Amino acid sequence: MPSGKKLRPLFVQVHPHDTVAIIVNEGGLPAGTEFDSGLKLIEDIPEAHKVALVDMPAGAPILRYGSVIGYAEYPIARGSWVHEERMRLPVAPSLDNLPHATAVPAPMPPIEGYTFDGFVNDDGSVGTKNILGITTTVQCVAATVDFAVKRIKAEILPRYPNVDDVIALTHNYGCGVAIDAPGAEIPIRTLRNLSLNPNLGGAPMVVSLGCEKLQPVRLLPNSTLPILAAEPYVVRMQDEEHHSFGDMVASIMQLAEKRLAELNRRTRVTRPASDLVVGLQCGGSDAFSGVTANPAVGYASDLLVRAGATVMFSEVTEVRDAIHLLTARAADEQVARDLVREMAWYDAYLDRGGVDRSANPTPGNKKGGLTNIVEKALGSTAKAGTSAIAGVFGPGERVTKKGLIFAATPASDFICGTLQLAASMNMHVFTTGRGTPYGLAMCPVIKVASRSALAERWSDLIDLDAGSIATGDATIEQVGTQLFQLILDVASGRKQTRADQWGLHNDLALFNPAPVT
Amino acid sequence: MPSGKKLRPLFVQVHPHDTVAIIVNEGGLPAGTEFDSGLKLIEDIPEAHKVALVDMPAGAPILRYGSVIGYAEYPIARGSWVHEERMRLPVAPSLDNLPHATAVPAPMPPIEGYTFDGFVNDDGSVGTKNILGITTTVQCVAATVDFAVKRIKAEILPRYPNVDDVIALTHNYGCGVAIDAPGAEIPIRTLRNLSLNPNLGGAPMVVSLGCEKLQPVRLLPNSTLPILAAEPYVVRMQDEEHHSFGDMVASIMQLAEKRLAELNRRTRVTRPASDLVVGLQCGGSDAFSGVTANPAVGYASDLLVRAGATVMFSEVTEVRDAIHLLTARAADEQVARDLVREMAWYDAYLDRGGVDRSANPTPGNKKGGLTNIVEKALGSTAKAGTSAIAGVFGPGERVTKKGLIFAATPASDFICGTLQLAASMNMHVFTTGRGTPYGLAMCPVIKVASRSALAERWSDLIDLDAGSIATGDATIEQVGTQLFQLILDVASGRKQTRADQWGLHNDLALFNPAPVT
Ligand SMILES: [Ca+2]
Ligand SMILES: [Ca+2]
Ligand SMILES: [Ca+2]
Ligand SMILES: [Ca+2]
Ligand SMILES: [Ca+2]
Repeated sequence: MPSGKKLRPLFVQVHPHDTVAIIVNEGGLPAGTEFDSGLKLIEDIPEAHKVALVDMPAGAPILRYGSVIGYAEYPIARGSWVHEERMRLPVAPSLDNLPHATAVPAPMPPIEGYTFDGFVNDDGSVGTKNILGITTTVQCVAATVDFAVKRIKAEILPRYPNVDDVIALTHNYGCGVAIDAPGAEIPIRTLRNLSLNPNLGGAPMVVSLGCEKLQPVRLLPNSTLPILAAEPYVVRMQDEEHHSFGDMVASIMQLAEKRLAELNRRTRVTRPASDLVVGLQCGGSDAFSGVTANPAVGYASDLLVRAGATVMFSEVTEVRDAIHLLTARAADEQVARDLVREMAWYDAYLDRGGVDRSANPTPGNKKGGLTNIVEKALGSTAKAGTSAIAGVFGPGERVTKKGLIFAATPASDFICGTLQLAASMNMHVFTTGRGTPYGLAMCPVIKVASRSALAERWSDLIDLDAGSIATGDATIEQVGTQLFQLILDVASGRKQTRADQWGLHNDLALFNPAPVT
Repeated sequence: MPSGKKLRPLFVQVHPHDTVAIIVNEGGLPAGTEFDSGLKLIEDIPEAHKVALVDMPAGAPILRYGSVIGYAEYPIARGSWVHEERMRLPVAPSLDNLPHATAVPAPMPPIEGYTFDGFVNDDGSVGTKNILGITTTVQCVAATVDFAVKRIKAEILPRYPNVDDVIALTHNYGCGVAIDAPGAEIPIRTLRNLSLNPNLGGAPMVVSLGCEKLQPVRLLPNSTLPILAAEPYVVRMQDEEHHSFGDMVASIMQLAEKRLAELNRRTRVTRPASDLVVGLQCGGSDAFSGVTANPAVGYASDLLVRAGATVMFSEVTEVRDAIHLLTARAADEQVARDLVREMAWYDAYLDRGGVDRSANPTPGNKKGGLTNIVEKALGSTAKAGTSAIAGVFGPGERVTKKGLIFAATPASDFICGTLQLAASMNMHVFTTGRGTPYGLAMCPVIKVASRSALAERWSDLIDLDAGSIATGDATIEQVGTQLFQLILDVASGRKQTRADQWGLHNDLALFNPAPVT
C-alpha cells in the first residue's frame, strides 16, 4: 500500500475457509465501506485489523490461515470488527498424541550455482564478516574491555584493513549466578558458541577476571579450542604480572594486535550458498506480518534450503500454538520428538514462572491487529517456508545440520538474535510490522517491513519492503526472490544493511533460565 | 602487609572463642613455621587461608567470628590447614522462631557538622553528580539511544559545563518478557526508580519504541512524575512524525538539549551528610574482607548513621546465614519480619531454580580462603557496622528512611549495584579482596582493598587500602574514619574515584526473576 496513492477498499483473506480477513487500507476503513466482493463494514475497522466475513454465532470457531485462532465470545455479525474482547483463546495443542512426521514435504528440486564471497575458517565454517571478537568470561571485566576496544579501534585496527570490526562480547553472566543450577548450561554454551561464530574467524580471544565462577577453562574447554595451549589467547586481569590498569589494557591490546594480524591475512573467496546459516526472526509484528513479510521470507527460506543452506527459525512461544503443524512436517520421528521436547521444556519454564505462552503478545501486536498468540504463531511460522524440518537444536547449541532447522529460543528479539548467533548464524533476516531499529554487531541483519507505509517512513532503516504483496503490486515469489538475492549480496559484502550503515548494534542478551545469587 | 617489607609470621583471630585464624603473610607460610603464640604449622597454608588453633575431633564445630562456620569432617590437628574438604556446611538458620528485635543496639551519639556539596533536586533528594540520564523503556531502542548519546556528548554537552555526563539507561527488559508474571514488578520498579535517582536531577527523559510491553505510562505513571503532561519528556520512535532514523535521533537530541539547559542551571550547595544515601557492597571477597575492609566500612557506616545519613547493605545470599544476628538487631518487630520476608522470598526463588544459597561462593572466594557461604556471610555483614537495622526495602524499591537499611538484592555485583541505584544511592562503597575493576556511570564508586598487596598492585584502580589493619599498621577506626572523609570529599566532587578517572562504567544489570517469552 504505497502511502502516496489512494487505494480502493481492500482486505486480505489468507485461506479460502477463513471467516475473517484483514483490512489493508492505511488508516483503516469507516463503517459503510463496501468491498468489490459485496462485503460491507458495519463499524469502523482499523488498518491491519480483522473483519468478519460471515455471521458467527457465539462459540463459533474463528478461522484465519485456515486454522482456528479463537472462538466467538458473542454472536459476531458479518462486516464487524473481530478484536480481542470478542474472541476466546483456544487451549494450546496438547503435546501428547501429536502427528509425528505424518505430512513430510517432498524434497524440493535443488538449485545450483548460487554463491557468495565469504571468509573461510579452519573449522570449515564461513564468515560473512571478518571480525575480531573479544570474549569476556564475566561482567566484571566488561568496562575494561570496552575501554580497550575503543583504543584498539582507534589505534590498531586502521593498520589491518581486511578486518571489518573489533567487538567486545560483553554480558551480565559469569559470576553472581547459580552456575550449577538446572539450565545453567544454556548461558554457558551460548557464550562458548558465540565465541566460535563464523564471523569471528573461529578462534576466540578471551578476557577473564580471575576469581569468577565461569573460568575460561569451563567456558572453552580444551576439547573445543586451542586456548590454554602453548600460547593461550587469554588475558587474566588478576594475574600478578599486571601491576596497574594500564598493564591490563596493554595486555589486551597486545593480544588483540596478534589476532588482528592473523585475521588481516584473510580475504573473501567464492563459496556456495550452502555455507550460509541464516537466522529468521520477527519482532514488532502486526497482522500483515503473516501475509506479506513472513511468507516472502518463507519463500526465500525454501530457496536457501534448495541451495543447500542452513535456515533457522526459532521463537518457541510463537510456534507453540502451531506445533501440530510442525511435528507433522518433521523429517522423521526423532525430529518430531525433539520439537516436542523443546515445547515441553518451555511450557515447564513458563509454568515455574507462573505464566503461559499467552504472555507473549505485546500492546503493539494488538494495536497492529494481532489478537492473540495463536494468530501470531500462525503468521510467525510462515517464515519457515514449506520444507521438511530437518533438525532441532536447543537454546545456545551450535547448529551442525543443513536444511530447515528449528533452533529453540525465546521470542524476545535480542535473546533470540543472540542465541541464533551462538547457533553459528552468519546472516540474519528480521521482519517487522510496527518497526524496530534492530541491529547486531556480529552479523548483518536484513530488515523486511510488512507494510509499505513503514518501509517508506523508515526508508533509512528498512532494507526490503514486503508491503506491496498486500496490495497485489508484487507477489510473494517476487519479494522472496528479491530477498534471496539480497542475502547473497549482503553476505558477500557487496551491499550493506541499514543497521551496518548507521552502526546500529544492539547488545547481546543472554538467556539464563537459572537463578542469580 | 605492605609487599615491600618482610613480615614475621602472622595470623588473625577475630574472636577469642575462634578455633581457626587466617594466615596474613603474602604467599602463605610453610610447614614448620612457628608463631609468637607458640602455634606451629604442620603443613603449608596459603595466604588468607585458615589454620586450626586447637585439635578438633570429627564433628567439632569450627568457630570464626565467634560463630559456627562449619563442622570438622575428619579429626583436624592443631596447626593444620582448614579447607573446604575438611569442613561440613551448617544448615541455614530456619526462618521460624528467629529472635526478633531482641538485641537492638542503643542509638549511638549523633555527630554534627559534617557536610558535602551536592545538587538539590525538587523532590528533596540530593545528587553527588549532575547527570542527564536517558531512560529507555525497551531494549529495542538501546542502539539508537547509544548513537544519539554519542552525538549529544560530542556536540551539545560541551556547551553545558555544569552537567557532568549524559548516560543512556539501557537494559534487556521491556519486551519479550512476561510482564504480568509474579516478580515482574521488580524490574519495572527498578527501571522507574533508576530514572528517579538523585544524580539524574529527579526528572527523567524517556525514549520509547511504541509497540513495547513496558509502555512509558506503565514505567512512569502520572502519579510518579510529570511525563505525559503538557510537554512530556518522552520520545516515541514509532510516532508518525518521525520520517527517518535521522528524525528520531534529532528528536532525542532536541529533548536532551532542553534538559541539559535545565540541569546546567544547578550548582553545588553545602548540604548535611544526612542527605547521603550510601550503598555498601563487596565483590571478589577473600578471607581478609571480613577482618579488614568490611569492618572498616562498618565503622564508616556507623559514622554515617550517626551523621543522619542512609546506609544500605544488601546481598541476600550473603546475609542469609547470619539472619539470626540481623533479626535480633532489627529496630522493631516489623523490621525483623520484613527481613524474614526477604529471606523467605529468596529461598523460594532459589528453590524454584533448583539451588540454594550454597551456590553463592566463587572459585576466587575459595582460593582467597573463604570456605563456604557461612564464613562469607559473617564477613560480609561486617560492612553493616553495629547500628540497629532501621528498615527493609524490597529489590528495586526506593529507600525512604534514614539510618541503616537492608535493601534486599542478589549478591551479583552489578545487579546489586543497579538495585542500590534504584534505591536512590548517591554514593557507593565496594570492598574487594581478589580485585575487580568495578565502576558505575550513575554514581561514584569508592573501592576498598582488603589486602595491601592488591592495593599496591592495582594502585590506579583501588581508592583505599584496608590491608594495613591485618598487619596492625592501622586500626579499623583509622581506616573507617579515612573512608568516611573520602566519602564526603568524593560526594562533593573534590576528589575523583579511580573508576571515574578512567571512565570505567559497567552496564546496568536488571534483576528479573520472571520468565522471558
Ligand atoms: Ca516474533
Ligand atoms: Ca522476536
Ligand atoms: Ca558480596
Ligand atoms: Ca556483590
Ligand atoms: Ca553496552
